Amino acid sequence: VKPSQQQLSITGLHGIGSVHAGDDLAAMLADALERAGLVPEAHDVVAVAQKVVSKAEARQVKLSSVSPSPRALDLADQTKKDARIVELILSESVAVLRAVPGVLITRHVLGFVCANAGIDQSNVGDETTVLLLPRDPDGSAEALRQRLQARFGAAPAVIITDSFGRPWRMGTVNVALGAAGMPVLIDRRGEEDLFGRCLQATEVAIADAVAAAAGLVMGEASEGCPAVHIRGLSWVLAPQQASTLIRPIGEDLFQ
Amino acid sequence: VKPSQQQLSITGLHGIGSVHAGDDLAAMLADALERAGLVPEAHDVVAVAQKVVSKAEARQVKLSSVSPSPRALDLADQTKKDARIVELILSESVAVLRAVPGVLITRHVLGFVCANAGIDQSNVGDETTVLLLPRDPDGSAEALRQRLQARFGAAPAVIITDSFGRPWRMGTVNVALGAAGMPVLIDRRGEEDLFGRCLQATEVAIADAVAAAAGLVMGEASEGCPAVHIRGLSWVLAPQQASTLIRPIGEDLFQ
Repeated sequence: VKPSQQQLSITGLHGIGSVHAGDDLAAMLADALERAGLVPEAHDVVAVAQKVVSKAEARQVKLSSVSPSPRALDLADQTKKDARIVELILSESVAVLRAVPGVLITRHVLGFVCANAGIDQSNVGDETTVLLLPRDPDGSAEALRQRLQARFGAAPAVIITDSFGRPWRMGTVNVALGAAGMPVLIDRRGEEDLFGRCLQATEVAIADAVAAAAGLVMGEASEGCPAVHIRGLSWVLAPQQASTLIRPIGEDLFQ
Repeated sequence: VKPSQQQLSITGLHGIGSVHAGDDLAAMLADALERAGLVPEAHDVVAVAQKVVSKAEARQVKLSSVSPSPRALDLADQTKKDARIVELILSESVAVLRAVPGVLITRHVLGFVCANAGIDQSNVGDETTVLLLPRDPDGSAEALRQRLQARFGAAPAVIITDSFGRPWRMGTVNVALGAAGMPVLIDRRGEEDLFGRCLQATEVAIADAVAAAAGLVMGEASEGCPAVHIRGLSWVLAPQQASTLIRPIGEDLFQ
């Protein structure tokens, strides 16, 4: 297992422009790769911000179309949030973990624990529109990968990233919402260290590290660079879905 | 504020070899940078694995020197761990957050919440020796930075990294234990998005993202590459210590 190499290059894919519902994001990514002179090779990775995937997949919701339930009105009061957004958060979630002023943390229907069910109110271009997470980020990643393969022959792995907060640490870091074509969790338990002893409890969330690295080049405030190309990784393990990175309920060792 | 660039290069610094108590780690890093042809420039970052910092700082402890307290014996029974290691974990911690078979999660005296107080049993070369975290990782980073500046004129930022587990996600990702010479938490609240609206609640843990990216090149199992060089970031904000990334007790929004 060699997930690492001597040198890694992370290159922003510019010129993708605004993405709208129904846009052919795979073609936009492929064009951006060509413009950057980055014809995909084996073990390349393309990381794509969730925002543009959601937009292309028409996950925009007009707030004027949302009628808050009594529960949403109650939680909106607790959290001082727009009740229509709370209604959308609830409809995207299976459990509310924390509701205090300014904060609503839930378990998303896809299993992720995050603030506001990943619903995004910035960078959508219309004050009264919000953006939900893709319905199936692993499926979205696989579909993008297949389209890139059809275009280029060799397919990069595809990671769909989003920025998540962390319980005990300040600030957000990008994680892998969706993945295709690469391992996401590398189990090093049983591998030997330099002194021939087995490593203990070392499972490495490689796809989350790739997402975090991609985030350094994507930035946050601008839509100018919603995708990056990463070259220099290698792996021999089978591909996994990013859902592998979600800790099963009941196995949470920190709670 | 421009924390990101079009292209980022992450290069492993090889040939550092085994590190022992009292070794001049700064000189070893400087030699490795020179061998790699990477004379530091402004906004370069050198990320160093905690393990080699701890070794150079003589944070090894022989288990035979440790006498477990009654509390350590009790927790060792609960967690099925070596009572001497539990004693060391307790001596490095201010609070026990979780103790079940195989798992002991504490708040480290430095504020970090992590498994086993960051105590490392692998890759130390002696079955009965364990390795504690550096006493002052931010100070260690600053000291390395000053030594590199004395050697090269221009100093890279220095990040000391360790791999941490996460509550709701599987696997470990590298985070920044110590930092010098760069901002670690970038507050983008108030910045405008592409449509002129203010971004909401976007504080980016840039130093943790750098640590995660560095981890992709460091790998885990080998001591062959305990440091990496990162070029292509830029920033205008003032440097911060990595302790800035520790969420204050009582402000934890997820608990």
